Amino acid sequence: MPIRHDPSRDETTTNAGLGVLSQRFGNRIETGLALRSQHAHTTTWLPNQPPDAVFCPRTTQEVQVVMAICNDHRMPVIPFGTGSSLEGHVNAPLGGLSIDFKDMNAILQVNSDDMDASVQPGVTRKALNTHLRDTGLFFSVDPGADASLGGMAATGASGTNAVRYGTMKDNVLALKAVLPSGELVTTAARARKTSAGYDLTRLMVGSEGTLGVITELTLRLRGIPEAVSAATCSFPSVSAACHTVIQTIQYGLPVARIELLDAVQVRAVNAYSRLRLPETPLLLVEFHGSAAGVAEQAETFGQIAAEQGGTGFVFTTREEERTQLWQARHDAYWAGLQLRPGAKGLSTDVCVPVSRLADCVTAAQDRLASAGILAPIVGHVGDGNFHCLLLIDMDNHSEIAQAEDFIGWLNDLAISMEGTCTGEHGIGQGKAKYLERELGAGAMSMMQAIKNAVDPNNILNPGKMGLY
Amino acid sequence: MPIRHDPSRDETTTNAGLGVLSQRFGNRIETGLALRSQHAHTTTWLPNQPPDAVFCPRTTQEVQVVMAICNDHRMPVIPFGTGSSLEGHVNAPLGGLSIDFKDMNAILQVNSDDMDASVQPGVTRKALNTHLRDTGLFFSVDPGADASLGGMAATGASGTNAVRYGTMKDNVLALKAVLPSGELVTTAARARKTSAGYDLTRLMVGSEGTLGVITELTLRLRGIPEAVSAATCSFPSVSAACHTVIQTIQYGLPVARIELLDAVQVRAVNAYSRLRLPETPLLLVEFHGSAAGVAEQAETFGQIAAEQGGTGFVFTTREEERTQLWQARHDAYWAGLQLRPGAKGLSTDVCVPVSRLADCVTAAQDRLASAGILAPIVGHVGDGNFHCLLLIDMDNHSEIAQAEDFIGWLNDLAISMEGTCTGEHGIGQGKAKYLERELGAGAMSMMQAIKNAVDPNNILNPGKMGLY
Repeated sequence: MPIRHDPSRDETTTNAGLGVLSQRFGNRIETGLALRSQHAHTTTWLPNQPPDAVFCPRTTQEVQVVMAICNDHRMPVIPFGTGSSLEGHVNAPLGGLSIDFKDMNAILQVNSDDMDASVQPGVTRKALNTHLRDTGLFFSVDPGADASLGGMAATGASGTNAVRYGTMKDNVLALKAVLPSGELVTTAARARKTSAGYDLTRLMVGSEGTLGVITELTLRLRGIPEAVSAATCSFPSVSAACHTVIQTIQYGLPVARIELLDAVQVRAVNAYSRLRLPETPLLLVEFHGSAAGVAEQAETFGQIAAEQGGTGFVFTTREEERTQLWQARHDAYWAGLQLRPGAKGLSTDVCVPVSRLADCVTAAQDRLASAGILAPIVGHVGDGNFHCLLLIDMDNHSEIAQAEDFIGWLNDLAISMEGTCTGEHGIGQGKAKYLERELGAGAMSMMQAIKNAVDPNNILNPGKMGLY
Repeated sequence: MPIRHDPSRDETTTNAGLGVLSQRFGNRIETGLALRSQHAHTTTWLPNQPPDAVFCPRTTQEVQVVMAICNDHRMPVIPFGTGSSLEGHVNAPLGGLSIDFKDMNAILQVNSDDMDASVQPGVTRKALNTHLRDTGLFFSVDPGADASLGGMAATGASGTNAVRYGTMKDNVLALKAVLPSGELVTTAARARKTSAGYDLTRLMVGSEGTLGVITELTLRLRGIPEAVSAATCSFPSVSAACHTVIQTIQYGLPVARIELLDAVQVRAVNAYSRLRLPETPLLLVEFHGSAAGVAEQAETFGQIAAEQGGTGFVFTTREEERTQLWQARHDAYWAGLQLRPGAKGLSTDVCVPVSRLADCVTAAQDRLASAGILAPIVGHVGDGNFHCLLLIDMDNHSEIAQAEDFIGWLNDLAISMEGTCTGEHGIGQGKAKYLERELGAGAMSMMQAIKNAVDPNNILNPGKMGLY
């Protein structure tokens, strides 16, 4: 990858840009160190690289004005939602302006008949679902954190129910984004389906702020199901659990969620939530549909699981019991951290074809054991995606080095299995070299060509995805 | 849109390119007029603009060699599948080489556990489904014609069951494409889900051969359902039928197909297939699932339809009866043409938010009536997409002018309703001006910038989508 050196970008130009921005917006251009640090990466092990200033726009027009000024001064622009991304997406390695969308948090319209909604990027997924409560509709993508919808689109987020309802790529119908010139692009009409031109919507989704700054999203909504059933089942091995997943999906059961907890993770939730689950791999599933349908589906799942040696199968359609049954999953993250108080959790994010999942998870477990790294595993196994939460003492350099070594090994293993180094967290700062190994030089140069064409001055979140 | 004039491209350069190609491939570079005409647009009213030559590659490597030669000589390259596209995608307005993929028709692998398959672009959808017959899996996208999968990807095809299984955008997991330089790009890994870099897969899907030539596709497969139910119901008005669609989907019924035939179309199938359906709007639906599930779903649909004034509701789960029940839909195209023997059928393709569908269809019917144009209507109404099949005497210039006027008016109407001028046929040659009206100057210049970056010499299917 050729890195574009820009001799015209230095501290002087940035200061000049900040001067023009301050003239225009006064003390809304904020430069306090604490605020700037909060707007850089804080969630994991990456170093904090604060921007030079933070601005909270109130309108799309303000974003357009700011972008044009930054472009004139070759000043980087880093869009910011809630800061919950895991791969350093909001860090500012070259300085610049963080555009925080917390004040652009309006739900612009809900079209019940069309099952869609238009929102500003600062709306969080929980805020949208609270707003939708009385409509019978919900927004399905659930990455765990109460992330902003703009950020979720930018990173291509998904989560537990992607196996049924898809990821952000499947649930953003259209968006508006500001280009470096200040020009506003509308990527698609509001129709459910389109063949009109390049799919700019899906090009923007997952582009991590490197192609434009999203200022509005039209999202697909789903009907709240009439009934929900939940079931859990323990397995003698990861392989038995994975084969159950494969057969469940091949059978055509419309599973809404299907999650794996490995034995270490089950031990963690037993301790944290005072459960008494067998400390072997556990599958949790959920079905959405009619009352009769979801009961039938859970029972069919139970039969498939039994054929694979599953034991302790339980299912329910009652809400309070469902919550109890899924408690192990809801508490997984915090329970995992409690396995080693004081440690920080570093999450991997590989995703492989489902046929390779058992091999991949088992190899990861073996290598974690031999390296002496404690790391519970949770997986969105219907998609072949799983996370090892490496519990690391961040004051211990050799532990950090071991963790980096493991993460690199796992990324390469997934790639060798025709998988990806990232199913849902994105590339951000740390995974650029794996992206190139995964897709090859052709894809990287095509991405760089697109980046250069859309952002010739390289002001849009430079350095992310290995693009400059 | 700035049109890129290329002074270095003329007949001399093309002849030089043809010379080099012939040196390399001998008489496999075919230049007979009949063959060339067959490789230009033949399906509707657009003029036939033949390429200068036709070549049928046998390997990806041959495509790479040919592309590099064409790029050196500024010679256009037009990928060709089965020629069933409806918007002039395979026409060669600037001449050049048609690359016909009929000999690259291998099914490379089927991964049953992962429910995916890798194919060469010349494989047709029926050939793939025949190959899959014993696996319990099928490829879902069904545009009617037995199109090639490469062509279906290039145009972003869909069809009757997109409402349940999605379009090509949702069912191509990854692809390989040759760029003008001859470089091969792999857009994604085979994992079900990825956040790794720009979504080049979905950028290529629907790009109509203007960004690269597809040489391999990895497709998502679906499990053949245990049971299928079909139902039909007549309605007093298009509006009543559309409200039934909205309620069916909001209710969460997992409808696999939901098709509308308007009264003119029902009259056509009554005559053609000797049916005795009431000549009012007709909905046909299909459900996929368990035996109990699909019966329950069809009955629930019947109740919703009755509330909207639907009459004559029939449903069945038996295969031979299902075929009979859906005969009106299967015969729709040929029945439509028989309304006016000798006339050619010109198809519109607008797609609007479902809440606007009744208004859009009704307005179209009114305008067709007042213009005296005979045009049965069929709609993939779950997506808000419908086709008017204008029956036109192609020897009558004033009829053609009237048809063009109507099509333009309908495209503009759909755009004014937040819809698109094309739900599944693509932009091709004729709809570029509507694309700009639909998405605005910002999107058009972003598309042109991407096109320029990826194809600096403008050799990839130039003139389609309004891009040069």
